[in-house]
Amino acid sequence: MPEYFQDHMPNNVCFGCGKLNPDGLQIKSHWEGDEAVCLWHSQPKYHGWENVINGGILATLIDCHCMGTALAAAYRAEGRPMGSDPIYRYATGTITVRYLLPTPNNRPILLRAQVIEMKGRKAKLRCRVVVEGQVTAEAEVVGIRVLEGQALEGSPFR
Amino acid sequence: MPEYFQDHMPNNVCFGCGKLNPDGLQIKSHWEGDEAVCLWHSQPKYHGWENVINGGILATLIDCHCMGTALAAAYRAEGRPMGSDPIYRYATGTITVRYLLPTPNNRPILLRAQVIEMKGRKAKLRCRVVVEGQVTAEAEVVGIRVLEGQALEGSPFR
Repeated sequence: MPEYFQDHMPNNVCFGCGKLNPDGLQIKSHWEGDEAVCLWHSQPKYHGWENVINGGILATLIDCHCMGTALAAAYRAEGRPMGSDPIYRYATGTITVRYLLPTPNNRPILLRAQVIEMKGRKAKLRCRVVVEGQVTAEAEVVGIRVLEGQALEGSPFR
Repeated sequence: MPEYFQDHMPNNVCFGCGKLNPDGLQIKSHWEGDEAVCLWHSQPKYHGWENVINGGILATLIDCHCMGTALAAAYRAEGRPMGSDPIYRYATGTITVRYLLPTPNNRPILLRAQVIEMKGRKAKLRCRVVVEGQVTAEAEVVGIRVLEGQALEGSPFR
Protein backbone atom coordinates (compact mmCIF):
# COMPACT_ATOMS: atom_id res chain seq x y z
CA MET A 1 0.00 0.00 0.00
CA PRO A 2 1.40 3.44 -0.87
CA GLU A 3 2.15 6.00 1.80
CA TYR A 4 -0.68 8.53 1.63
CA PHE A 5 0.14 12.18 2.23
CA GLN A 6 -3.15 12.66 4.06
CA ASP A 7 -2.08 10.17 6.73
CA HIS A 8 0.47 12.73 7.84
CA MET A 9 -1.78 15.71 8.44
CA PRO A 10 -2.77 15.60 12.10
CA ASN A 11 -6.11 17.19 13.06
CA ASN A 12 -7.08 17.60 9.42
CA VAL A 13 -10.81 18.31 9.23
CA CYS A 14 -10.73 19.62 5.64
CA PHE A 15 -13.77 18.89 3.46
CA GLY A 16 -11.52 17.81 0.62
CA CYS A 17 -8.69 15.89 2.28
CA GLY A 18 -9.37 15.59 5.98
CA LYS A 19 -9.33 12.09 7.42
CA LEU A 20 -11.31 13.57 10.30
CA ASN A 21 -14.16 14.84 8.11
CA PRO A 22 -16.68 11.99 7.73
CA ASP A 23 -18.76 14.13 5.34
CA GLY A 24 -15.79 15.12 3.19
CA LEU A 25 -14.28 13.88 -0.06
CA GLN A 26 -11.47 12.08 1.81
CA ILE A 27 -8.99 12.08 -1.07
CA LYS A 28 -5.78 10.07 -0.79
CA SER A 29 -2.61 11.09 -2.64
CA HIS A 30 0.73 9.37 -3.06
CA TRP A 31 3.95 9.59 -5.04
CA GLU A 32 4.44 7.80 -8.30
CA GLY A 33 7.99 8.88 -9.14
CA ASP A 34 7.96 12.66 -9.46
CA GLU A 35 4.21 12.81 -9.91
CA ALA A 36 1.66 12.73 -7.14
CA VAL A 37 -1.44 10.75 -8.03
CA CYS A 38 -4.90 10.55 -6.54
CA LEU A 39 -7.62 8.19 -7.69
CA TRP A 40 -11.07 9.21 -6.58
CA HIS A 41 -14.58 7.83 -6.93
CA SER A 42 -17.43 10.32 -6.92
CA GLN A 43 -21.02 10.07 -5.75
CA PRO A 44 -24.15 11.09 -7.66
CA LYS A 45 -24.76 14.09 -5.39
CA TYR A 46 -21.55 15.73 -6.62
CA HIS A 47 -22.73 16.10 -10.20
CA GLY A 48 -23.08 19.42 -11.97
CA TRP A 49 -25.06 17.96 -14.83
CA GLU A 50 -26.34 14.43 -15.13
CA ASN A 51 -23.26 12.14 -15.03
CA VAL A 52 -20.86 15.09 -15.18
CA ILE A 53 -18.99 16.14 -12.05
CA ASN A 54 -19.58 19.61 -10.65
CA GLY A 55 -16.69 21.91 -11.59
CA GLY A 56 -16.29 23.16 -8.05
CA ILE A 57 -15.99 19.67 -6.62
CA LEU A 58 -13.37 18.98 -9.28
CA ALA A 59 -11.57 22.16 -8.19
CA THR A 60 -11.73 20.92 -4.60
CA LEU A 61 -10.08 17.63 -5.56
CA ILE A 62 -7.36 19.45 -7.50
CA ASP A 63 -6.80 21.99 -4.76
CA CYS A 64 -6.46 19.48 -1.94
CA HIS A 65 -4.40 17.07 -4.02
CA CYS A 66 -1.98 19.88 -4.87
CA MET A 67 -1.69 21.12 -1.30
CA GLY A 68 -0.93 17.57 -0.17
CA THR A 69 1.64 17.31 -2.93
CA ALA A 70 3.28 20.59 -1.91
CA LEU A 71 3.49 19.30 1.63
CA ALA A 72 5.01 15.99 0.58
CA ALA A 73 7.47 17.77 -1.71
CA ALA A 74 8.59 20.03 1.13
CA TYR A 75 9.42 17.04 3.35
CA ARG A 76 11.07 15.32 0.40
CA ALA A 77 13.22 18.38 -0.35
CA GLU A 78 14.42 18.35 3.24
CA GLY A 79 15.13 14.64 3.08
CA ARG A 80 12.94 13.80 6.05
CA PRO A 81 9.93 11.54 6.49
CA MET A 82 6.42 12.96 6.15
CA GLY A 83 4.96 13.99 9.45
CA SER A 84 8.34 14.43 11.16
CA ASP A 85 8.85 17.65 13.14
CA PRO A 86 8.36 20.42 12.33
CA ILE A 87 4.93 19.64 10.90
CA TYR A 88 4.09 21.63 7.76
CA ARG A 89 0.77 22.60 6.20
CA TYR A 90 -0.01 24.45 2.98
CA ALA A 91 -2.94 26.70 2.08
CA THR A 92 -3.96 27.68 -1.43
CA GLY A 93 -2.91 31.09 -2.68
CA THR A 94 -4.28 30.89 -6.22
CA ILE A 95 -5.94 28.22 -8.30
CA THR A 96 -6.71 28.24 -12.02
CA VAL A 97 -8.70 25.39 -13.55
CA ARG A 98 -9.35 25.01 -17.28
CA TYR A 99 -12.23 22.68 -18.03
CA LEU A 100 -11.44 21.03 -21.36
CA LEU A 101 -14.15 18.39 -21.53
CA PRO A 102 -17.08 17.38 -19.33
CA THR A 103 -15.55 15.15 -16.60
CA PRO A 104 -17.72 12.08 -15.99
CA ASN A 105 -19.07 11.70 -12.47
CA ASN A 106 -19.57 7.96 -12.79
CA ARG A 107 -16.01 6.90 -13.68
CA PRO A 108 -12.84 6.82 -11.56
CA ILE A 109 -11.17 10.23 -11.64
CA LEU A 110 -7.39 10.34 -11.68
CA LEU A 111 -5.41 13.42 -10.69
CA ARG A 112 -1.74 13.80 -11.62
CA ALA A 113 0.18 16.66 -10.03
CA GLN A 114 3.72 17.87 -10.42
CA VAL A 115 5.65 20.49 -8.50
CA ILE A 116 6.88 23.13 -10.92
CA GLU A 117 8.68 25.33 -8.42
CA MET A 118 9.43 25.47 -4.69
CA LYS A 119 10.73 28.80 -3.44
CA GLY A 120 10.77 29.51 0.28
CA ARG A 121 7.22 29.10 1.57
CA LYS A 122 5.73 29.10 -1.93
CA ALA A 123 4.99 26.04 -4.05
CA LYS A 124 3.76 26.12 -7.65
CA LEU A 125 2.07 23.03 -9.05
CA ARG A 126 0.45 21.76 -12.21
CA CYS A 127 -2.30 19.18 -12.18
CA ARG A 128 -4.13 17.20 -14.83
CA VAL A 129 -7.46 15.40 -14.47
CA VAL A 130 -7.60 12.14 -16.38
CA VAL A 131 -10.65 9.93 -16.96
CA GLU A 132 -10.30 6.76 -19.01
CA GLY A 133 -7.11 8.08 -20.55
CA GLN A 134 -8.51 11.47 -21.51
CA VAL A 135 -7.34 14.72 -19.97
CA THR A 136 -10.56 16.52 -19.08
CA ALA A 137 -9.14 19.45 -17.11
CA GLU A 138 -5.82 21.04 -16.23
CA ALA A 139 -4.86 23.40 -13.46
CA GLU A 140 -2.15 25.54 -11.93
CA VAL A 141 -2.12 25.96 -8.19
CA VAL A 142 0.04 28.08 -5.92
CA GLY A 143 0.32 27.00 -2.31
CA ILE A 144 1.81 28.85 0.62
CA ARG A 145 3.29 27.11 3.64
CA VAL A 146 1.24 28.61 6.44
CA LEU A 147 2.21 26.52 9.39
CA GLU A 148 5.21 24.98 10.97
CA GLY A 149 5.07 22.92 14.13
CA GLN A 150 3.84 24.85 17.16
CA ALA A 151 2.42 27.64 15.03
CA LEU A 152 -0.53 25.35 14.40
CA GLU A 153 -1.91 26.19 17.82
CA GLY A 154 -4.11 29.26 17.94
CA SER A 155 -3.95 29.87 14.19
CA PRO A 156 -6.99 30.18 11.96
CA PHE A 157 -5.16 27.61 9.82
CA ARG A 158 -5.49 24.73 12.18
CA MET B 1 -38.47 38.76 -2.61
CA PRO B 2 -35.90 39.02 -5.40
CA GLU B 3 -36.14 36.95 -8.55
CA TYR B 4 -33.54 34.20 -8.17
CA PHE B 5 -31.65 33.07 -11.26
CA GLN B 6 -31.71 29.47 -10.03
CA ASP B 7 -35.51 29.44 -10.19
CA HIS B 8 -35.15 29.57 -13.96
CA MET B 9 -32.92 26.55 -14.54
CA PRO B 10 -35.22 23.61 -15.20
CA ASN B 11 -33.89 20.13 -14.29
CA ASN B 12 -30.90 21.62 -12.52
CA VAL B 13 -29.30 18.90 -10.36
CA CYS B 14 -26.00 20.75 -9.88
CA PHE B 15 -24.23 20.30 -6.54
CA GLY B 16 -23.63 24.03 -6.31
CA CYS B 17 -26.80 25.62 -7.63
CA GLY B 18 -29.36 22.92 -8.38
CA LYS B 19 -32.74 23.32 -6.75
CA LEU B 20 -33.17 19.59 -7.45
CA ASN B 21 -30.07 18.56 -5.49
CA PRO B 22 -31.11 18.10 -1.85
CA ASP B 23 -27.48 17.39 -0.86
CA GLY B 24 -26.12 20.44 -2.68
CA LEU B 25 -25.17 23.96 -1.70
CA GLN B 26 -28.40 25.39 -3.18
CA ILE B 27 -27.11 28.91 -3.76
CA LYS B 28 -29.50 31.66 -4.77
CA SER B 29 -28.38 34.62 -6.87
CA HIS B 30 -30.15 37.81 -7.87
CA TRP B 31 -29.48 41.20 -9.45
CA GLU B 32 -28.62 44.23 -7.40
CA GLY B 33 -28.25 46.81 -10.15
CA ASP B 34 -25.42 45.66 -12.39
CA GLU B 35 -24.03 43.29 -9.79
CA ALA B 36 -25.31 39.83 -9.07
CA VAL B 37 -25.26 38.95 -5.40
CA CYS B 38 -25.52 35.72 -3.48
CA LEU B 39 -25.65 35.42 0.28
CA TRP B 40 -24.80 31.96 1.56
CA HIS B 41 -24.60 30.27 4.94
CA SER B 42 -22.17 27.41 5.30
CA GLN B 43 -22.19 24.29 7.44
CA PRO B 44 -19.37 22.98 9.64
CA LYS B 45 -18.67 20.05 7.31
CA TYR B 46 -17.57 22.44 4.57
CA HIS B 47 -14.57 23.75 6.48
CA GLY B 48 -11.00 23.42 5.30
CA TRP B 49 -9.55 24.38 8.64
CA GLU B 50 -11.45 24.97 11.85
CA ASN B 51 -13.89 27.85 11.18
CA VAL B 52 -12.38 28.52 7.74
CA ILE B 53 -14.27 27.46 4.63
CA ASN B 54 -12.67 24.93 2.29
CA GLY B 55 -11.21 26.69 -0.74
CA GLY B 56 -12.84 24.28 -3.16
CA ILE B 57 -16.29 24.85 -1.71
CA LEU B 58 -15.66 28.57 -2.02
CA ALA B 59 -14.66 27.98 -5.66
CA THR B 60 -17.91 26.04 -6.13
CA LEU B 61 -19.96 28.98 -4.82
CA ILE B 62 -18.10 31.42 -7.07
CA ASP B 63 -18.35 29.15 -10.10
CA CYS B 64 -22.07 28.51 -9.82
CA HIS B 65 -22.86 32.12 -8.90
CA CYS B 66 -20.97 33.31 -11.98
CA MET B 67 -22.62 30.80 -14.32
CA GLY B 68 -26.03 31.89 -13.02
CA THR B 69 -25.01 35.50 -13.55
CA ALA B 70 -23.87 34.81 -17.12
CA LEU B 71 -27.22 33.19 -17.78
CA ALA B 72 -29.17 36.08 -16.32
CA ALA B 73 -27.03 38.58 -18.24
CA ALA B 74 -27.70 36.75 -21.50
CA TYR B 75 -31.47 36.99 -21.02
CA ARG B 76 -31.09 40.61 -19.94
CA ALA B 77 -29.03 41.45 -23.03
CA GLU B 78 -31.80 40.04 -25.19
CA GLY B 79 -34.44 41.96 -23.29
CA ARG B 80 -36.46 38.90 -22.41
CA PRO B 81 -37.54 37.36 -19.10
CA MET B 82 -35.41 34.66 -17.49
CA GLY B 83 -36.55 31.19 -18.39
CA SER B 84 -38.27 32.27 -21.61
CA ASP B 85 -37.53 30.21 -24.71
CA PRO B 86 -34.95 29.38 -25.83
CA ILE B 87 -33.62 28.21 -22.47
CA TYR B 88 -29.90 28.90 -21.97
CA ARG B 89 -27.31 27.24 -19.74
CA TYR B 90 -23.66 28.07 -19.17
CA ALA B 91 -20.74 25.81 -18.25
CA THR B 92 -17.42 26.96 -16.86
CA GLY B 93 -14.50 27.24 -19.22
CA THR B 94 -11.88 28.61 -16.84
CA ILE B 95 -11.86 29.75 -13.24
CA THR B 96 -9.13 31.54 -11.32
CA VAL B 97 -9.54 32.16 -7.61
CA ARG B 98 -7.14 34.21 -5.50
CA TYR B 99 -7.48 33.53 -1.79
CA LEU B 100 -6.56 36.76 -0.03
CA LEU B 101 -7.56 35.96 3.54
CA PRO B 102 -8.98 32.92 5.31
CA THR B 103 -12.76 33.06 4.65
CA PRO B 104 -14.72 32.28 7.81
CA ASN B 105 -17.01 29.27 7.63
CA ASN B 106 -19.24 30.48 10.45
CA ARG B 107 -20.29 33.87 9.07
CA PRO B 108 -22.60 34.75 6.14
CA ILE B 109 -20.63 34.72 2.90
CA LEU B 110 -21.51 37.31 0.29
CA LEU B 111 -20.59 36.94 -3.37
CA ARG B 112 -20.64 39.91 -5.74
CA ALA B 113 -20.25 39.20 -9.44
CA GLN B 114 -20.06 41.45 -12.47
CA VAL B 115 -20.08 40.64 -16.14
CA ILE B 116 -16.92 42.05 -17.72
CA GLU B 117 -17.56 40.92 -21.28
CA MET B 118 -20.20 39.05 -23.29
CA LYS B 119 -19.10 37.94 -26.74
CA GLY B 120 -21.11 35.35 -28.62
CA ARG B 121 -21.35 32.26 -26.46
CA LYS B 122 -18.61 33.45 -24.11
CA ALA B 123 -19.08 35.37 -20.89
CA LYS B 124 -16.29 36.75 -18.72
CA LEU B 125 -17.03 37.60 -15.11
CA ARG B 126 -15.34 38.92 -12.02
CA CYS B 127 -16.41 37.93 -8.53
CA ARG B 128 -15.51 39.06 -5.04
CA VAL B 129 -16.12 37.19 -1.80
CA VAL B 130 -17.03 39.47 1.09
CA VAL B 131 -17.39 38.54 4.76
CA GLU B 132 -18.25 41.20 7.31
CA GLY B 133 -17.14 43.90 4.90
CA GLN B 134 -13.78 42.33 4.08
CA VAL B 135 -12.89 40.99 0.64
CA THR B 136 -11.43 37.56 1.36
CA ALA B 137 -11.11 36.24 -2.20
CA GLU B 138 -11.48 37.41 -5.79
CA ALA B 139 -11.99 35.48 -8.98
CA GLU B 140 -12.24 35.60 -12.74
CA VAL B 141 -14.50 33.11 -14.45
CA VAL B 142 -15.14 32.40 -18.11
CA GLY B 143 -18.40 30.72 -18.99
CA ILE B 144 -19.50 29.21 -22.26
CA ARG B 145 -23.12 28.97 -23.33
CA VAL B 146 -23.47 25.25 -23.94
CA LEU B 147 -27.17 24.83 -24.39
CA GLU B 148 -30.07 26.43 -26.06
CA GLY B 149 -33.59 25.09 -25.86
CA GLN B 150 -33.99 21.66 -27.37
CA ALA B 151 -30.24 21.00 -27.38
CA LEU B 152 -30.63 20.21 -23.68
CA GLU B 153 -32.00 16.80 -24.56
CA GLY B 154 -29.39 14.12 -25.02
CA SER B 155 -26.47 16.40 -24.17
CA PRO B 156 -23.94 15.57 -21.44
CA PHE B 157 -24.74 19.10 -20.28
CA ARG B 158 -28.23 18.47 -19.15
